[in-house]
Amino acid sequence: MRRDFAVFETVAIIGLGLLGSSLCHAIRGRRQAKRIVGTDTSAETRATAERIELCDAVCADAAEAVSEADLVILCVPVGAMAAVVAEIAPALKPGAVVTDVGSVKAAVIDAVAPLLPSHATLVPAHPIAGTEHSGPEAGFASLFEGRWCIVTPLPATPPETVERVIALWEALGSRVDTMTPEHHDRVLAVTSHLPHLIAYTIVGTADDLEEVTQAEVIKYSAGGFRDFTRIAASDPTMWRDVFLNNREATLELLGRFTEDLVALPPTNSALQRDEIF
Amino acid sequence: MRRDFAVFETVAIIGLGLLGSSLCHAIRGRRQAKRIVGTDTSAETRATAERIELCDAVCADAAEAVSEADLVILCVPVGAMAAVVAEIAPALKPGAVVTDVGSVKAAVIDAVAPLLPSHATLVPAHPIAGTEHSGPEAGFASLFEGRWCIVTPLPATPPETVERVIALWEALGSRVDTMTPEHHDRVLAVTSHLPHLIAYTIVGTADDLEEVTQAEVIKYSAGGFRDFTRIAASDPTMWRDVFLNNREATLELLGRFTEDLVALPPTNSALQRDEIF
Repeated sequence: MRRDFAVFETVAIIGLGLLGSSLCHAIRGRRQAKRIVGTDTSAETRATAERIELCDAVCADAAEAVSEADLVILCVPVGAMAAVVAEIAPALKPGAVVTDVGSVKAAVIDAVAPLLPSHATLVPAHPIAGTEHSGPEAGFASLFEGRWCIVTPLPATPPETVERVIALWEALGSRVDTMTPEHHDRVLAVTSHLPHLIAYTIVGTADDLEEVTQAEVIKYSAGGFRDFTRIAASDPTMWRDVFLNNREATLELLGRFTEDLVALPPTNSALQRDEIF
Repeated sequence: MRRDFAVFETVAIIGLGLLGSSLCHAIRGRRQAKRIVGTDTSAETRATAERIELCDAVCADAAEAVSEADLVILCVPVGAMAAVVAEIAPALKPGAVVTDVGSVKAAVIDAVAPLLPSHATLVPAHPIAGTEHSGPEAGFASLFEGRWCIVTPLPATPPETVERVIALWEALGSRVDTMTPEHHDRVLAVTSHLPHLIAYTIVGTADDLEEVTQAEVIKYSAGGFRDFTRIAASDPTMWRDVFLNNREATLELLGRFTEDLVALPPTNSALQRDEIF
């Protein structure tokens, strides 16, 4: 931890779902901002955020939310990042740092960086933390503790700005690694995006079977299937969005995986039996 | 529970791995046999079983182990069942009941049933219970408690013999279902065999990547991959054997799964984006 208090004066959290609301709790709990302003496109989410006093202020208008912010954290689905940044860009104050929590980095940077004014700086980040729950009431302060956060700085970004973002994540209890956006996307394709794609698919395949009922699948799921259903319980819109935006790395890996998969059931059973006994 | 004590006088457990050793603990703990005789092809396993007093007697010779048994429980890998039954068949006493714990039923029945003498009765069973640990010291009495056990009786078997086997599993704390061997194999293909095949494959695919290191895969595995590594930690010989012996149902399902998998990453991104926002 590089600073004790108020790494940033005012932090704006855009999107008050699981990650946004957890950031509110964690930043407040670790006293990393003097003021937190939140915003969300859903009136219901904003009302909940006000009721549970998630932030110091909740705005309906994203541009208004960021107008005083030293740090803006984008906590919306990857595919919604560009639209949000187009909306807030004119309102960003000089020196504002913009970061995000998206599970894909290269596509987000490509979409967001050109929209930002030159007086704001983008420092992309991805905390590898989550639960299968969603919404403003799902957040909790310790979500990031002991978890990795990957920061993917752009070449032109001043090191001290990158350090401020790293310091924030470390203050929230995370361990931070830096790498290029492209490498991040390859690593996450294997550790997260392909596993989610597989889990969603097998749950769908099981749904469509005629000879085996859903009741049977659930009843006997302890044999391995249950782990897949738990992964597949994550927000499907968010994940569809992740696959779309990390299409190339995920598809390349999917190709290797399906090749390995159809190669694995042995065709020469005599040989395989020799190996077994 | 249909009987309080000694459902069977003498039970022989063939194979003292996780399931065999758990059965020793559970049958002894629930007082379901007066005497338990164990056997294993591994001298080391037999020595361990004697040291920890897993059974009342440990035999090196499987035929000797079953000679007094009213119930024989085959706890060897699915592919080893036929060889074991060929060995014990001449020693089975009249009225002996033979059951097993194999994860595949049709192939085991096809291999085992023709080898049994007419004075013994086969009642195939599959407790859906396990851990990622193996060996005679991995077993524990409560492994079967609250878990399902599927019994797949043959049409000609007297109902009272099937009931004795069901009563034993219920006495060990399991819930019992009966179905045909073929239906069992289809259900388990989706709830267990395909998930294991997928988990082994993705762990292998990740091993072979050049651009992403194993250290990175492990470090960032919280994003979903970790669940796959846990499933893939099960005994690979046992599972290779299961795939081989439930080849047809697993391959059919694998075909559907890979079709669904390559169909899922959307090709019409304009349409998909409309669905998301």
